Amino acid sequence: MDTSVAILGSGNMADFLLRAFHGAGIHIEALIARDLDAVRKNLPSSTFSDKLLDSSNLKELKSHMLFLAISDDAIAEVTKNYTFKDNQCVIHTSGAVNLHEIQHSNKGVFYPLQTLTSGRSLDFSQVPLLIESSDKTSEQVLLSLGKKISTKVLAVNSSQRLRYHLAAVFVSNFVNHLYHSAQGILQKNNLPLDLLFPLMQESLDKAREIGPWKAQTGPALRNDEVTLNAHREILKEDDLKAIYNLMTEQIQNRQKWD
Amino acid sequence: MDTSVAILGSGNMADFLLRAFHGAGIHIEALIARDLDAVRKNLPSSTFSDKLLDSSNLKELKSHMLFLAISDDAIAEVTKNYTFKDNQCVIHTSGAVNLHEIQHSNKGVFYPLQTLTSGRSLDFSQVPLLIESSDKTSEQVLLSLGKKISTKVLAVNSSQRLRYHLAAVFVSNFVNHLYHSAQGILQKNNLPLDLLFPLMQESLDKAREIGPWKAQTGPALRNDEVTLNAHREILKEDDLKAIYNLMTEQIQNRQKWD
Repeated sequence: MDTSVAILGSGNMADFLLRAFHGAGIHIEALIARDLDAVRKNLPSSTFSDKLLDSSNLKELKSHMLFLAISDDAIAEVTKNYTFKDNQCVIHTSGAVNLHEIQHSNKGVFYPLQTLTSGRSLDFSQVPLLIESSDKTSEQVLLSLGKKISTKVLAVNSSQRLRYHLAAVFVSNFVNHLYHSAQGILQKNNLPLDLLFPLMQESLDKAREIGPWKAQTGPALRNDEVTLNAHREILKEDDLKAIYNLMTEQIQNRQKWD
Repeated sequence: MDTSVAILGSGNMADFLLRAFHGAGIHIEALIARDLDAVRKNLPSSTFSDKLLDSSNLKELKSHMLFLAISDDAIAEVTKNYTFKDNQCVIHTSGAVNLHEIQHSNKGVFYPLQTLTSGRSLDFSQVPLLIESSDKTSEQVLLSLGKKISTKVLAVNSSQRLRYHLAAVFVSNFVNHLYHSAQGILQKNNLPLDLLFPLMQESLDKAREIGPWKAQTGPALRNDEVTLNAHREILKEDDLKAIYNLMTEQIQNRQKWD
């Protein structure tokens, strides 16, 4: 029997689920959203065509798998306010929210460990999908749906997922803030960031291939005081200085994890 | 007339110059090093074969272009201790050292803005080369040598180069330290870092394509206190906490540069 799914939401996550399920040939029974105009404007219409419902129609759904593509803090409230059928599995898609926030007995998690932006093309097969469920049957359905989309699907509990989410914040949001800071350092002298792109890529490739411990280089690691002082001399902004001093100190005192 | 070059040094930078010049068909007159055994062991011998000299032979060099692949703090001393011919241009390869540290009238800088590791294959055409010189003739020779190696060659002064070097520390050394920190967060629970590789790559691609300002996402930017607190709850180590709090605060108060 083919599993069909329904999706509640209209943001980046709904966009991801629509395109990922559609691309994998998974039937999308309906997309449910409060603001149907926003959906028609922002989401890829070919993926759901006329299977568009507003939230009042939730009880008409036949699909056993209902995916919530809503904000973290809405999960508990939304699932409390709706009455789901007993055989429906209600699935959130958040990295940080515990499975048990879902106010329905049959529940699951389907978390894509990736930064999502509406309309950006993405190789879905490379997006890790972290799965959790309150019962083995739903877990099997979620794993099987996941494997139609991605080659990296695994079952983890809420505590492990939160840890992945935290690590993701370090390598995505915080790394991006360093890119932004570097842009600030250059822009004050009208120098463009794009000259650093090959270095950004090589730094990533090297960390991936030999691990961040061996990949580390630079004046902090070498305790090169002359260069550290030359850098501090031209760092005028308090926020850039704070990053510089903290990171330099931590690199000098870093510890090996394995 | 073909320019021939000589290289003084035996580390990662000497390795880069040897392979880059050799690959571009530039004649390497000699490699000069104190420890010739280390050179024979670590450097790609096909690039210099028997053109290997120890430092006492420096005066025999015919090449007008002598590249110093030595540590930053050795540049002033080494160039003071040797006597160069007037028509020889002495070139350092450092991002952070001022041109005028070279104790010889005819001087230059040839700085590859990349993280270099002996033996790692690298697309030389994509390595930005930052050029500086005390006179226009040597600058032209350096630009022309650079263009045989890379498509990204530009003349910048010592102050601009230091700024690029500082920005490079942010996007390479500091980013790598965030990768290392993320590994620490995961390793305590025996979770592997490799699940984060697609996210690391997509975060870089997104910053490159739409800029770090627009590319920023996450709980700090959303002021999502519930998630921020959940993260802080599981962050036990002082160093990881310090990064988390500083980066979160800075993302919440970040300023647009352009």
